Amino acid sequence: MTKVAVIYFSGYGHNQKVADAVIEGIKSEGAEALDLKIGQDGGLDDAQLDKIDSAQAIIYGAPTYMGGPAWQFKKFADQSSKKWFTRAWQDKLGGGFTVSASQVGDKGQTMAYLQTLASQHGQIWVSLGLLPSNSLAASEDDLNRRGGSVGLMATAPSDSSPEQAPFKGDLETAKFYGARIAKLAAKFA
Amino acid sequence: MTKVAVIYFSGYGHNQKVADAVIEGIKSEGAEALDLKIGQDGGLDDAQLDKIDSAQAIIYGAPTYMGGPAWQFKKFADQSSKKWFTRAWQDKLGGGFTVSASQVGDKGQTMAYLQTLASQHGQIWVSLGLLPSNSLAASEDDLNRRGGSVGLMATAPSDSSPEQAPFKGDLETAKFYGARIAKLAAKFA
Amino acid sequence: MTKVAVIYFSGYGHNQKVADAVIEGIKSEGAEALDLKIGQDGGLDDAQLDKIDSAQAIIYGAPTYMGGPAWQFKKFADQSSKKWFTRAWQDKLGGGFTVSASQVGDKGQTMAYLQTLASQHGQIWVSLGLLPSNSLAASEDDLNRRGGSVGLMATAPSDSSPEQAPFKGDLETAKFYGARIAKLAAKFA
Amino acid sequence: MTKVAVIYFSGYGHNQKVADAVIEGIKSEGAEALDLKIGQDGGLDDAQLDKIDSAQAIIYGAPTYMGGPAWQFKKFADQSSKKWFTRAWQDKLGGGFTVSASQVGDKGQTMAYLQTLASQHGQIWVSLGLLPSNSLAASEDDLNRRGGSVGLMATAPSDSSPEQAPFKGDLETAKFYGARIAKLAAKFA
Repeated sequence: MTKVAVIYFSGYGHNQKVADAVIEGIKSEGAEALDLKIGQDGGLDDAQLDKIDSAQAIIYGAPTYMGGPAWQFKKFADQSSKKWFTRAWQDKLGGGFTVSASQVGDKGQTMAYLQTLASQHGQIWVSLGLLPSNSLAASEDDLNRRGGSVGLMATAPSDSSPEQAPFKGDLETAKFYGARIAKLAAKFA
Repeated sequence: MTKVAVIYFSGYGHNQKVADAVIEGIKSEGAEALDLKIGQDGGLDDAQLDKIDSAQAIIYGAPTYMGGPAWQFKKFADQSSKKWFTRAWQDKLGGGFTVSASQVGDKGQTMAYLQTLASQHGQIWVSLGLLPSNSLAASEDDLNRRGGSVGLMATAPSDSSPEQAPFKGDLETAKFYGARIAKLAAKFA
Repeated sequence: MTKVAVIYFSGYGHNQKVADAVIEGIKSEGAEALDLKIGQDGGLDDAQLDKIDSAQAIIYGAPTYMGGPAWQFKKFADQSSKKWFTRAWQDKLGGGFTVSASQVGDKGQTMAYLQTLASQHGQIWVSLGLLPSNSLAASEDDLNRRGGSVGLMATAPSDSSPEQAPFKGDLETAKFYGARIAKLAAKFA
Repeated sequence: MTKVAVIYFSGYGHNQKVADAVIEGIKSEGAEALDLKIGQDGGLDDAQLDKIDSAQAIIYGAPTYMGGPAWQFKKFADQSSKKWFTRAWQDKLGGGFTVSASQVGDKGQTMAYLQTLASQHGQIWVSLGLLPSNSLAASEDDLNRRGGSVGLMATAPSDSSPEQAPFKGDLETAKFYGARIAKLAAKFA
């Protein structure tokens, strides 16, 4: 059975909703999702890190704070150097997601980091794989309303609750991306 | 008199509107704007490159095509290696803008390139300097609706004419940014 | 038979040597290499663009000029928007290489662009997949002497001829990377 | 008196040596250096954050771990959001440095992040301002041996002690960069 690890941090609940949608997408393909949520003190413990070894794909998720991934996520990334050294995650598929309050913000910086982390581990990065919804008539209900290419980018306005945002289009795109990675992982395994 | 060079390419007229707004902002501070538009064949001629030497600040503008600055702009950047070699633009202030059809797209990649080009020339980069408009009630009329930090990012939907987009908020932000750079150039000179 | 397209520009011959080594690596796996060299005027013609459609993997190569890919390569990237629109290259594996005169330079900026271009096309990016050679005793003969992760980065000093540089370690790494991508493309097809 | 804050983390002592050289450069211009070292638990306390408000320039330094700034530094960056909100550091000059074991590694990714952090705060980024040493005869004693443009990049081989590396050229470049920023801060104030 294909297994996809989803490693993420959520500060206020918005990124949790994105992670949930990604996981829903993974399961929709009949794959198993390893739900690895990073706590407020950052990082994962060794047992959690070891669980990732058996996955065929790893998806990284972090909110964009001050122009980059939340430090709690970066703590995990630094801990993963022991897996880097033994090439434990080499050739696994990879993907990433982020959420920020601003429409653009510096989401691209976070996505570039998640992609670089995957490269450090010798992984193979799966792009979003969707044309953008960028016409005058496009709405928040549309797939890939952000027009992302590298991975999944979601927006949650600064005064929104996790019940209000990210919006429908972002969450549907998250499901699509989770399913896409699970499908490719099954094919590649 | 403070002089600010604005070097830009515009494929379909949307980036021209952003450049015009940046120039309007520069002039609003009583500074001179050197309007250097790159043609469809790309690059600038030597006389144009030499004109830039007398400016106190240089602002770079390129639409985001296929995840980076339009090749016509990059041709100018490559030509500017002769100025790089003689350090002709060292310590001049720098700034940048881009426009893309998608809300996010890969605007961040283009901004990162413009910033790197300025660093190659030994310049000093002026960030946008505005908090984002990212509440639930924020609209396209607001300053910094994109939530940019590095420079100016504008959006023009794929089926919009230059009369329709970029929207008011983006153009007002462009004026603000042009004025900000002119003001800092005067102070720094 | 697995087919890997290698699309590259070479200004002074150094990047040609890297491309040759990548192609040698591809062939060492029994795969076919499509050798698509971009000329001094930049870009490829439509017949060349169409040839790429039948490849299972696409490797992009451009020297780093002024902190980014040479404009001749970017012209090709912009032309490829017609393939972007029809998703002709979706799900193909991707990879990239660059060369610069400086040890670090802004190679990372070029690699980030090549990776973003692949994401625009919906591709799946293959990282270098090698630990770095970064001990005190490491030499220019070693694999991955640059310590790259995203793709292949080579160095050719500013006064070196293509016969002198890139050095042995860079070229061996290029062969390794070409072979790695061909192998994964065969597995993934 | 011009005051320059230097905020940095050092895991094994190599980045400490770079910070020391940057500070030496600042002092060589008769400016005051605020030495703010981040501890192993990451971040700074509120009193330390407040001290930064009175500086004319802020230089950020973090080793590159797993392709980005060490998490201990990122924790500080996330904490600085309170200063971001009140624009307390707006228009201050900014700069950055990093060290990694690999020659190239993903230093560029860390530099891009430090530059983005400065932009988030509305700062004005000072590039390195030096041509590269990239000829065949260039040595580890040369200024800007790495060929950096955005800021200061140093190398310390994986098995080197802080006494052995970074090498002379990197440390001299660090002094140059510290002096450059102090000089420009005095001019700009």
